Amino acid sequence: MRLIDEAALADITLGSTVLGSGGGGDPYIGMLLAREAIRRHGPVPLVDLDEVPGDANIVFIAGLGAPGVLVEKLPRENEYAGVLRELERFTGQTYSYICPAEAGGFNGVTPFTTSAVTGVPVVDADGMGRAFPELQLVTPTLYGGRATPLTMVDEHGNVMSLESPTNAWSEAYVRAAVVASGAHGAIAVYPMTGAEAKERLIRGPITLAEEIGRAIREARAAHTSPVEAVLAKQGGVLLLTGKVEEVERKNEGGWTVGKARLSGLDDDRGRRMTVDFQNEYLIAERDGRVVATSPDLIMTLEIDSGEPIPAEEIRYGYRVAVVGLPCDPHWRTEAGIEIAGPRHFGYDIDYRPVEETAGDVRA
Amino acid sequence: MRLIDEAALADITLGSTVLGSGGGGDPYIGMLLAREAIRRHGPVPLVDLDEVPGDANIVFIAGLGAPGVLVEKLPRENEYAGVLRELERFTGQTYSYICPAEAGGFNGVTPFTTSAVTGVPVVDADGMGRAFPELQLVTPTLYGGRATPLTMVDEHGNVMSLESPTNAWSEAYVRAAVVASGAHGAIAVYPMTGAEAKERLIRGPITLAEEIGRAIREARAAHTSPVEAVLAKQGGVLLLTGKVEEVERKNEGGWTVGKARLSGLDDDRGRRMTVDFQNEYLIAERDGRVVATSPDLIMTLEIDSGEPIPAEEIRYGYRVAVVGLPCDPHWRTEAGIEIAGPRHFGYDIDYRPVEETAGDVRA
Repeated sequence: MRLIDEAALADITLGSTVLGSGGGGDPYIGMLLAREAIRRHGPVPLVDLDEVPGDANIVFIAGLGAPGVLVEKLPRENEYAGVLRELERFTGQTYSYICPAEAGGFNGVTPFTTSAVTGVPVVDADGMGRAFPELQLVTPTLYGGRATPLTMVDEHGNVMSLESPTNAWSEAYVRAAVVASGAHGAIAVYPMTGAEAKERLIRGPITLAEEIGRAIREARAAHTSPVEAVLAKQGGVLLLTGKVEEVERKNEGGWTVGKARLSGLDDDRGRRMTVDFQNEYLIAERDGRVVATSPDLIMTLEIDSGEPIPAEEIRYGYRVAVVGLPCDPHWRTEAGIEIAGPRHFGYDIDYRPVEETAGDVRA
Repeated sequence: MRLIDEAALADITLGSTVLGSGGGGDPYIGMLLAREAIRRHGPVPLVDLDEVPGDANIVFIAGLGAPGVLVEKLPRENEYAGVLRELERFTGQTYSYICPAEAGGFNGVTPFTTSAVTGVPVVDADGMGRAFPELQLVTPTLYGGRATPLTMVDEHGNVMSLESPTNAWSEAYVRAAVVASGAHGAIAVYPMTGAEAKERLIRGPITLAEEIGRAIREARAAHTSPVEAVLAKQGGVLLLTGKVEEVERKNEGGWTVGKARLSGLDDDRGRRMTVDFQNEYLIAERDGRVVATSPDLIMTLEIDSGEPIPAEEIRYGYRVAVVGLPCDPHWRTEAGIEIAGPRHFGYDIDYRPVEETAGDVRA
């Protein structure tokens, strides 16, 4: 167990943006809320998954909604504390541990608000190791884990509790509820035991986010390359160094969907790249050849600062390194590729690990 | 207490269509389900509101969804029995009585299915005395009654429980959930005590529906006018005898919205009428003057058979009597007109009781 203070939270926030694969909502919004809660209530305990007793109850805390709405309507501490109490009331169980559903993006940070207010420790584990746009796209789904019973709380005081036959049904109901709420809700979802968590969850994503954030911060201070620091930290592949030439983007079915086109710079002069996104960056093509796909992470980092540029913010003129980072091994199983691979998102493409495509990039 | 058998159910169904004011969904769908349950489990006890102990718990049972969907997907007994059990599990309370939320349309009949399966008696009371398209448009709302805690069950096995700060928020969440479910759900909503029910609910709508249904049936058998029988039974006003010339109808925001235009027949030759609807018939104008508005009931009855023609079925060529029927006195209070009068539905019109407009009709 160690304590997460404001400084650690800042590094985690920066790293969560990288793990967001271009999506997952802006972690800085979640950070503002968590920082305020930490200032008020003190640092937050972070524990390893190994420290969680097998018979303890643990649950994901997350915020759901359209990322654009978060900027306009800052969520409140109340919702993130209340949702855990409401799940306890609904199930009659006590939850002694919480953790993020997704360590990438906004939801990499939201559990710290719940923890600061309630005193319930955060476990260094999550269900994605990245960000995904749907509630059922978590590793517990691969092991038969159930999203429900779940509870959602919105800023108006609506409390919805749900039991669903499948995780896809949970996603449909929660998504509808988020829209009805006027577009943001805090949820407590995928309750499980410590023993189940040890089998099903991804270990250490918060520490990883913190290390990535720290590496970027230290590289900036040392005037070395933050992009190199991220690649070294994560075993990633530099897919292109280039300039954004054009971005198509629209809101469709509650998602931000589109495509960024880039032209190469420096060693990549003359090369071209397209990156498709649906909230997250999903597919990168270099000179017409697929070089990275979901569930591996694709991230654009501003060349000089290493600042991660989310898909909803990327635009003409940005000079970025497009990096591919290997996803957690849970996602590289047959079941993982089935629910989170390119075909799930409508692409007729086979998944290949991004490290294997490194040869294509250099060819 | 008396027992409702198949024959009584048939009369209630016919009368519920009249009380539906053109909307509320097709009671015949609800009747098929309830009749099957009665055949399997036996007749259903119907009790007067006065028989309910003040400290007993009572709750509305209703089905929510787009009427068109009901025809394609017959709801199942399971949902209407399950929803009461799920509310009991959610609240930890026992509900010894149920009643319709709205005695008009589909939901005038749905509680009989729940009752046949569970043995819980139906109370001869409701929250509308007619049909309305929104969950908060019930008499308990006028007295500060709360829609929640509520539970909704769909055919897939999703169970949603909700607590909301206002009844309008309950409506928003439930409507979203119904859409997510693929468009039909059974709900248990507005839990209250017997004492609260006696203050807040409309008395005797099921018996009224049965009497209207019987009057139409008997008039048909005696070859007398079913329209006259309905008017005599309900103290209504004949607004026009005419022929449907044109119907505009579209689906908008989950509602069936439109306008029927009629030309007069017989004594009304040369007169013209328009009837606006939003699921229910809301406004009738005769020669450009408003002669009936919500919350009073407006119904179209096929002239010869007395068959009530819902707004979703009315079309060119129908020969109908357009009748205005007085709503329950609960709706004629200031609060009642505020939430269910013409302005609630976007019309810049003052409410006048339909009996008063009888003079306009004859002028």
